[in-house]
Amino acid sequence: MDKLFRKDAFNYHALGRPGKIEVVPTKPYSTQRDLSLAYTPGVADPCLAIEKTPEDVYKYTAKGNLVAVISNGTAVLGLGNIGAEAGKPVMEGKGLLFKIFADVDVFDIEVDETDIDKFIETVKAISPTFGGINLEDIKAPECFEIERRLKEELNIPIMHDDQHGTAIITSAGLLNALEIVGKKIEDIKIVVNGAGAASISCTQLYMRLGAKRENIIMLDSRGVLHKDRTDLNETKKQFVTDKPVHTLKEAIKGADVFLGLSVGGILKKDMLLSMAKKPIVFALANPTPEIAYDVAMEIRDDIVMATGRSDYPNQINNVLGFPFIFRGALDVRATEINEEMKLAASKALAKLAKEPVPEEVNIAFKVANLNFGRDYIIPKPTDPRLIETVAPAVAKAAIDSGVAQKTIDNWSAYREELRKRLGLSNPLMRQMKAACKRNPKRIVLTDAQD
Amino acid sequence: MDKLFRKDAFNYHALGRPGKIEVVPTKPYSTQRDLSLAYTPGVADPCLAIEKTPEDVYKYTAKGNLVAVISNGTAVLGLGNIGAEAGKPVMEGKGLLFKIFADVDVFDIEVDETDIDKFIETVKAISPTFGGINLEDIKAPECFEIERRLKEELNIPIMHDDQHGTAIITSAGLLNALEIVGKKIEDIKIVVNGAGAASISCTQLYMRLGAKRENIIMLDSRGVLHKDRTDLNETKKQFVTDKPVHTLKEAIKGADVFLGLSVGGILKKDMLLSMAKKPIVFALANPTPEIAYDVAMEIRDDIVMATGRSDYPNQINNVLGFPFIFRGALDVRATEINEEMKLAASKALAKLAKEPVPEEVNIAFKVANLNFGRDYIIPKPTDPRLIETVAPAVAKAAIDSGVAQKTIDNWSAYREELRKRLGLSNPLMRQMKAACKRNPKRIVLTDAQD
Repeated sequence: MDKLFRKDAFNYHALGRPGKIEVVPTKPYSTQRDLSLAYTPGVADPCLAIEKTPEDVYKYTAKGNLVAVISNGTAVLGLGNIGAEAGKPVMEGKGLLFKIFADVDVFDIEVDETDIDKFIETVKAISPTFGGINLEDIKAPECFEIERRLKEELNIPIMHDDQHGTAIITSAGLLNALEIVGKKIEDIKIVVNGAGAASISCTQLYMRLGAKRENIIMLDSRGVLHKDRTDLNETKKQFVTDKPVHTLKEAIKGADVFLGLSVGGILKKDMLLSMAKKPIVFALANPTPEIAYDVAMEIRDDIVMATGRSDYPNQINNVLGFPFIFRGALDVRATEINEEMKLAASKALAKLAKEPVPEEVNIAFKVANLNFGRDYIIPKPTDPRLIETVAPAVAKAAIDSGVAQKTIDNWSAYREELRKRLGLSNPLMRQMKAACKRNPKRIVLTDAQD
Repeated sequence: MDKLFRKDAFNYHALGRPGKIEVVPTKPYSTQRDLSLAYTPGVADPCLAIEKTPEDVYKYTAKGNLVAVISNGTAVLGLGNIGAEAGKPVMEGKGLLFKIFADVDVFDIEVDETDIDKFIETVKAISPTFGGINLEDIKAPECFEIERRLKEELNIPIMHDDQHGTAIITSAGLLNALEIVGKKIEDIKIVVNGAGAASISCTQLYMRLGAKRENIIMLDSRGVLHKDRTDLNETKKQFVTDKPVHTLKEAIKGADVFLGLSVGGILKKDMLLSMAKKPIVFALANPTPEIAYDVAMEIRDDIVMATGRSDYPNQINNVLGFPFIFRGALDVRATEINEEMKLAASKALAKLAKEPVPEEVNIAFKVANLNFGRDYIIPKPTDPRLIETVAPAVAKAAIDSGVAQKTIDNWSAYREELRKRLGLSNPLMRQMKAACKRNPKRIVLTDAQD
């Protein structure tokens, strides 16, 4: 990142009202009568209605559209354990993304607690406030137990996005990449470099999609998770191999898929060259991928590659998932976010990438035409069809799997409602559409890494 | 309340977006560069800055303007223990008032926990999120220990508004009423009917203003808190009397002041007639005061009376206090809300009532002219001077008492900044001002009880 960009980032956060969010009324408040409805005495009746019929809280309060983004700051971005308060800019930013991509309201909650039991107790205690909980940037292995127990003990949609977000998006990309290279998920050899929360969740989801346990090798910073290692925690032990490989160089030989959730530059040219024909490489370290995009493309013309960066094709970006997953879950008042819903999101994303791309997306990304293929295996975050595609898929999966407390009968009306949410709350999309009509050359999305 | 009003209250909460608040971005988000500043990778620098210099969290996040309205729903309005979720409409409403009166952002947090220790642990754990904490509708006596310990253990402004809000506002009214009737606070006999959190806090503040312990009699629903009673908790025991009185009828005889925080209609005509000359009656039960305003005025032409209702003169309304107290506390980053700050708020309110009233306030309340006197002892909630009067008084008291972490040098610039906040965020005031200029007769604030 250059100095100018860093200065802009500081200014963006500091200038004007510090931070990135504010809380505003959605109802009239210009007369004393308005205020007597909003507060005492008018507010008493909705309170009593909720006391009598608890689900009325969804009718009379913002709960049903309100998600907590909760973190204890123990694994913030790639910055590590920087503490609850230092993670606040990320949590506010996540809230901003939830709002502009899916009109979900977010309270970011920074929790000063690293003890698993106490963290869980805290989240449970404040849970009546929220319609859903997005756990964020909590370090492994604590995050696994925290998410598992909260899901067991609470009755609202809960997801640790660091685990499942990347899994859902990369699964969509993987399904499409496999189709392009003509391989079956049951047959492929996968190397997962990195053994954090996201790596483990990705691996689990790939297995649910058909990948074979024995075809997967996972590595942490010390090398292959091997059964002869004595330094592994319970989570990592689930993924040990007994193959005679201990380094990335050994493991990658002949592999069909490389998933990198590790550090920049770790995948060397010779390693990439040693992979199977038509290799799939998801090099997601940010901002420097495990192998540079240009280098990889140069030495393997049969590669399908994705990164975490927006300035190359096939960006794996969690914003393709979480806003719409929670949107769908909230809209049918799902009691959880289950595997069916995650898979549905993944498949909806994969399918969307195969459909013709709206003109505004082509223009925004300065390409003549985005067409399904090695340079376009996953939708772009600015694709206005995302909300009306992914959220209904998630909602439907919730209904079909029996975790929805509300059903949707008129799906086209629901999609129209979603479009309206976007139109009302997402000037990014709206401005782009308008600008495209006015002057197709004027809108250029610059990127941080440019 | 009539049926139509109740229907309006339900509709107000349910129609359109359920509830009363949403969370919106305050920074640009229309380009990919905007998003790369708001979230990764741009957000990393503010995070690292906060990790290094914790107070930078006030520079780069919304924390410094963010107050938690926290309740466990054990004493919601006059409705009693209706539970955390059923209290949510009140907490959202309180947030709305904070925003429109003082541009303070609020996350309402409903806590499903009645155990004192666990409640405190929960609030402490989530406290990094907030610049201040407004405890709300927590029942006595638990609320006393909860507030005391949180104030001891945290370093941000904390106030249980049910206790202190009413104390601050009634103190302002009491000081002015005493001036009007020509009595000294040191001399007056006070009867406090009701022994909940607000009653106790009022009594403590009156004593700090000079009222004598031995001149105060407090009653709960069973009668006078008397030293021969065996059913009193520790809090109530502090206020026992050994005078030979056990009922309100006995206690009120010859009293100068009646403070009612109890139930409608309990102060009978003969009791009022038995009070001292020029009695001061604050009958704050809502919506039905301890004695009807018209009745009281008819039988005592020497009375100074206040109620909780907006349709009579002298409404005691907590909204005169909490928005501006937190505003002032946040603006100097006070480490607490101490007694000096509360007294300063009270005195600022009392003083404001003696100043000439802006035309828009006169018009809004359909009176020819509001002038300091028995019908106007306390400012109106719609008075646009409140924020620039009370918040600076609180901020100054924080600085003078050594709890401010930031100082204010240019007070007129600060007041201008406050006016600007109001202008930007409070259409109630703005619309009223504009409408007054256009047509002084058009703006009429209707009231719930009309």
